[in-house]
Amino acid sequence: MKRIRYVWLLLLACALCPNELRSSGTPQAQSGAPTAPDSTDPKAQVRAVLEAQRTAWNRHDLRAYMQCYWNSPELTFFGGDAAATGWENTYERYRAAYQAPGREMGRLEWSDIRIELLAPDAAFATGSWHLALKNGSRRQGMFTVILRKFGNNWYIIHDHSS
Amino acid sequence: MKRIRYVWLLLLACALCPNELRSSGTPQAQSGAPTAPDSTDPKAQVRAVLEAQRTAWNRHDLRAYMQCYWNSPELTFFGGDAAATGWENTYERYRAAYQAPGREMGRLEWSDIRIELLAPDAAFATGSWHLALKNGSRRQGMFTVILRKFGNNWYIIHDHSS
Repeated sequence: MKRIRYVWLLLLACALCPNELRSSGTPQAQSGAPTAPDSTDPKAQVRAVLEAQRTAWNRHDLRAYMQCYWNSPELTFFGGDAAATGWENTYERYRAAYQAPGREMGRLEWSDIRIELLAPDAAFATGSWHLALKNGSRRQGMFTVILRKFGNNWYIIHDHSS
Repeated sequence: MKRIRYVWLLLLACALCPNELRSSGTPQAQSGAPTAPDSTDPKAQVRAVLEAQRTAWNRHDLRAYMQCYWNSPELTFFGGDAAATGWENTYERYRAAYQAPGREMGRLEWSDIRIELLAPDAAFATGSWHLALKNGSRRQGMFTVILRKFGNNWYIIHDHSS
């Protein structure tokens, strides 16, 4: 039963975040035709986006992780004490923080996830993030993400992680 | 001209956040009949809520400041490395951080305010906060607030400040 649920979640995640598994594609591939999500429950769709992000992170595929963000100059990311505006700047920030020499992505987990629908095409999710690094150190914090539905897919349009 | 704009903003703020000036009232007064806002522009209405919060803070009226938050057990506040759930807990957190012995509220300013409408009754605002304290020290950070419109008034339903 657990295995069936897991497969379903994976399929849903792929459908919702269609470029998530195409890590060799360019970020612009986001504008490609999306696949309809398997679930009609918007909260389940948003949860699947977060799950797709987490699994992409944990296979250290930052480009796939980034596919869940809105590929727009209007995307905003607040992290630490700095803000990034636009998809490209957000990607560069992640690369500098987690893929530069001496840095690592580690293993990411979420907890206390809460998803609230604001409109049929708008939602926000909050939770805690936990990052375990190879040297045994751990980092954690809280996140707030705001999502919009464009076509059949949900994308993060603003991320505040602290 | 500036003075007229200021008066207009103050009137709008009072209308949008009707309990804002009634600091002697209980938080439960939020459920009282709201006054219709002067502006029909939702972004101006949200901006006025933020302005009402800032002016309440700067006269060190925490209860009035709190009137712009949704008076609900579902209100969430992420600040520092801790989360508060519910209006009462959020208020207590602010009291402990800014009104306990040896603490002060200081002078608050916002900058880089950006307001985005997500639906006729849902919006989010981001920006930076700057707090100047009497001893000359300064603190600053970023905020993301999500607002819903209940009746004629907008209230913050989630605040992530870091």
